[in-house]
Amino acid sequence: MKAYRDFSREELQKEKAVLEKKFDEIKAQNLHLDMSRGKPSAVQLDLAMGMMDVLSSTSNLKCETGVDCRNYGVLDGIPEAQQLLADMTEVPANQIIIYGNSSLNIMFDTVSRSMTHGVMGSTPWCKLDQVKFLCPVPGYDRHFAITEYFGIDMVNIPMTPDGPDMDLVEEYVNNDPTVKGIWCVPKYSNPQGITYSDETVRRFARLKPAAEDFRIYWDNAYGIHHLYDDKQDHLIEILMECKKEGNPDMVFKFCSTSKVSFPGSGVAAMAASPANLEFVRKHMKIQTIGHDKLNQLRHVRYFKDIHGMVAHMKKQADVLRPKFEAVLNVLDKELSDLQIGSWLRPRGGYFISFDALPGCAKAIVAKAKEAGLVMTEAGATYPYGKDPNDSNIRIAPSYPTPEELAIAAEIFVLSVKLVSIDKYLAEV
Amino acid sequence: MKAYRDFSREELQKEKAVLEKKFDEIKAQNLHLDMSRGKPSAVQLDLAMGMMDVLSSTSNLKCETGVDCRNYGVLDGIPEAQQLLADMTEVPANQIIIYGNSSLNIMFDTVSRSMTHGVMGSTPWCKLDQVKFLCPVPGYDRHFAITEYFGIDMVNIPMTPDGPDMDLVEEYVNNDPTVKGIWCVPKYSNPQGITYSDETVRRFARLKPAAEDFRIYWDNAYGIHHLYDDKQDHLIEILMECKKEGNPDMVFKFCSTSKVSFPGSGVAAMAASPANLEFVRKHMKIQTIGHDKLNQLRHVRYFKDIHGMVAHMKKQADVLRPKFEAVLNVLDKELSDLQIGSWLRPRGGYFISFDALPGCAKAIVAKAKEAGLVMTEAGATYPYGKDPNDSNIRIAPSYPTPEELAIAAEIFVLSVKLVSIDKYLAEV
Repeated sequence: MKAYRDFSREELQKEKAVLEKKFDEIKAQNLHLDMSRGKPSAVQLDLAMGMMDVLSSTSNLKCETGVDCRNYGVLDGIPEAQQLLADMTEVPANQIIIYGNSSLNIMFDTVSRSMTHGVMGSTPWCKLDQVKFLCPVPGYDRHFAITEYFGIDMVNIPMTPDGPDMDLVEEYVNNDPTVKGIWCVPKYSNPQGITYSDETVRRFARLKPAAEDFRIYWDNAYGIHHLYDDKQDHLIEILMECKKEGNPDMVFKFCSTSKVSFPGSGVAAMAASPANLEFVRKHMKIQTIGHDKLNQLRHVRYFKDIHGMVAHMKKQADVLRPKFEAVLNVLDKELSDLQIGSWLRPRGGYFISFDALPGCAKAIVAKAKEAGLVMTEAGATYPYGKDPNDSNIRIAPSYPTPEELAIAAEIFVLSVKLVSIDKYLAEV
Repeated sequence: MKAYRDFSREELQKEKAVLEKKFDEIKAQNLHLDMSRGKPSAVQLDLAMGMMDVLSSTSNLKCETGVDCRNYGVLDGIPEAQQLLADMTEVPANQIIIYGNSSLNIMFDTVSRSMTHGVMGSTPWCKLDQVKFLCPVPGYDRHFAITEYFGIDMVNIPMTPDGPDMDLVEEYVNNDPTVKGIWCVPKYSNPQGITYSDETVRRFARLKPAAEDFRIYWDNAYGIHHLYDDKQDHLIEILMECKKEGNPDMVFKFCSTSKVSFPGSGVAAMAASPANLEFVRKHMKIQTIGHDKLNQLRHVRYFKDIHGMVAHMKKQADVLRPKFEAVLNVLDKELSDLQIGSWLRPRGGYFISFDALPGCAKAIVAKAKEAGLVMTEAGATYPYGKDPNDSNIRIAPSYPTPEELAIAAEIFVLSVKLVSIDKYLAEV
């Protein structure tokens, strides 16, 4: 099959008629499908149900240091939970603090604290005329929502297959003292599934920030969320790399078990240098007496150690992999020859990123919705919800069943084709 | 027995010698006792162990609206948890938001949000030259720590047996637009165990704040924490009272199950007017995808309803009551005639407040420590840790065993007596 751009006007119109008929048939089925959010399916959650049994009324509810997990205290989290999440995110156990159920909440609090109290002694950002964050795009909408909420100016940094455009990152960070942070999902990135290359991580570690309070917000959300056993991306550990380069305090690293155990009831953590953590604790000890230690204990008793967690993630991969492949196969089969969109094949994470012809993303998402398929809003992967090319669409294949996904993918490619044809017809 | 102030110098010295001997005997026992924090004892926590069994791998983990509690979402909390905590704090279920495990954390976030985003459209406090909070004293050290951390100026408001001195509260709130809040523990107050009178609550509701963003921070921490079945304080419900007075938006009400189920793993909530909650949600939806719904479900499945919770609190009262009485009886027996201190007999809550002779609190706490008894630091019940009279000491009888309490109370009264005698001897 040749590319649409090589179709004649008549060929396009003929193709359109065929596709519209198909589309209307599906539309008539009155479907309700959702590929909008990176939400685990019930089948994935069922895999962790054993976690509901590890603590009972006859259990010893003391942690390994003998503290009663039911009572107040232990600000940093119980040691065995620190060890588990430290292993998960590849840092020493004394460089991690365990929080509540949400790493997003930790990131929000980290920005909020910087607004009111600065970073390790710097001027509180609310006292500054301008604060900027670099935002690799496409990226995670909830990151951008935090910085927008606090009135922080966001600067788009294009993603490359190796991670953010580091020439641009270096230019901004090393020269502009109003640049205080960069949002990163360094492994199986949201939405592209890109893992930062070794060289990218090393260039991050070698930054010479103009601002003393510049930090890399390293959201390692998908560190152990592989899709394949034999094909796994590897990410260099950023804290150690920064330490080696004489920049020990330049990173806040975030992780959680939201997509390991239960999204609503996981355990989240932040890893950073001892100096950063000391500053964080000053804030934290005013904010709370401690997080939920029973839930920390529940996670440790269930997974036992990182090996147990990795084994568990293989079961999750077995559920997710066919879903990713179902969507990718439809994209390959239906769209690769037509040259009306591009995408990557992620080896982990929760998303597939689709780049439509410029100016088509909003129309495609709207079209899909007509047939009952909800996608992430076009533009969501960019700061302020504004994709300058109106091109990127995030596909989240985790929640629907494989049967639903087959239809959803069909609706999606039909929508892409129809909108692309309309674009060409308007141009001809 | 006559009062110490009527003792002659010789009588004081003789008494001192006798007491010092007793004190040294106890000191030689090398004890480690702690009456410093309002921490439930293991026996109280054991009462709720059934909560560890209500959810298992075979449980239906959907809430009453059919949402899977394991997954993301439901920002306000599951409806049945809203109902339970609404009943606990006597508000309609649609006027409450369920959070994580800590009401302190909600209060901190509420102040933090006001700093960066104001209150329902007002100027963010970080943009103002001065922000003041009224602090009824003695009060809760962790409240004062929050306002101090954010650089908010604190104004002492003396407590009376009916609650804060309302003449002073009205004078400040109604005339000073820099006064943005007041910290209240309105029932079984920390540390005095005072419940605000009907007239006090009504005067709160009738305030005419000079600042549009003034709010009452109503920390109803001990709403159902009675010590007696037949002698219970009653507190008028402040949200309804404010609504009746045309001040519906003037209150943030906080509560939690920390001292109902487990202090580390309870459920906390905030109640407020619909307009306040709408503003809060704008913040919250950026901060988190949702709190721990499984723990909410666990609480509802265990307590079932407010009746179950009240029944549970009676069991807790049976554990706490003898402890309070043990301490109070020693105070009565050993100190009432000597007139070297005063205290109230609380009917609920977690503390007994002791007012020593002026200038003696720090010395008493230090003396007690010599014999192995840790008390709350003197001054802690005042903003900035500064008790202007150096008189107030908070006694927390919940954590030690009854046997330990008997010795602890003995050490405490010996310390009070010795320090008081020294004061008189220095004055004579």
